[in-house]
Amino acid sequence: MIASTPDPPYYAVIFTSVRTGEDHGYAEMANRMVELARQQDGFLGVESARNEIGITVSYWRDLESIRKWKEHFEHSIARQKGRMEWYKSFKTRIAKVERDYGFEREE
Amino acid sequence: MIASTPDPPYYAVIFTSVRTGEDHGYAEMANRMVELARQQDGFLGVESARNEIGITVSYWRDLESIRKWKEHFEHSIARQKGRMEWYKSFKTRIAKVERDYGFEREE
Repeated sequence: MIASTPDPPYYAVIFTSVRTGEDHGYAEMANRMVELARQQDGFLGVESARNEIGITVSYWRDLESIRKWKEHFEHSIARQKGRMEWYKSFKTRIAKVERDYGFEREE
Repeated sequence: MIASTPDPPYYAVIFTSVRTGEDHGYAEMANRMVELARQQDGFLGVESARNEIGITVSYWRDLESIRKWKEHFEHSIARQKGRMEWYKSFKTRIAKVERDYGFEREE
């Protein structure tokens, strides 16, 4: 689903990753992290897709809510496991959304 | 592939879309647009993944290079066809990357 976000400015965390072959509870962790992120103050939405690479973009009210989510205990553990097992490589980019526009087909 | 981008600041265009069932040369257009984007001044890289939704993030030096790419003739035609045929809905977000960090597994 395309995330329904408020008018800019707000923040995007663009997380791009390449997986290892290891599974070990990856899907459960990924689902749990989305569930947990949704409960955080300042969370605005998330979009995710994967084939050769995975791209997850989460949207946040401000840098403070991103910082808190990064320091969330359960998320820290998941991030550590990500480095140990699940990801061959990843890149995280913190970006301020300045403008957005959309299109919705009329049926 | 994870895009290899310079140190921030730079810009990201986050394009999230839901496809219609229509094909009509979609893959050719998508490949051509990436090929063409790579030739533009200020282009820094692109990442793309699709399953239920598609996410394409392209990276640019500044807003001026994004504006020029948006006005590129062939790209305009493709965007028009996107609205007419290929996309059920999409959202485009222009964001300034302020910070990034990565991880690369040592083999």
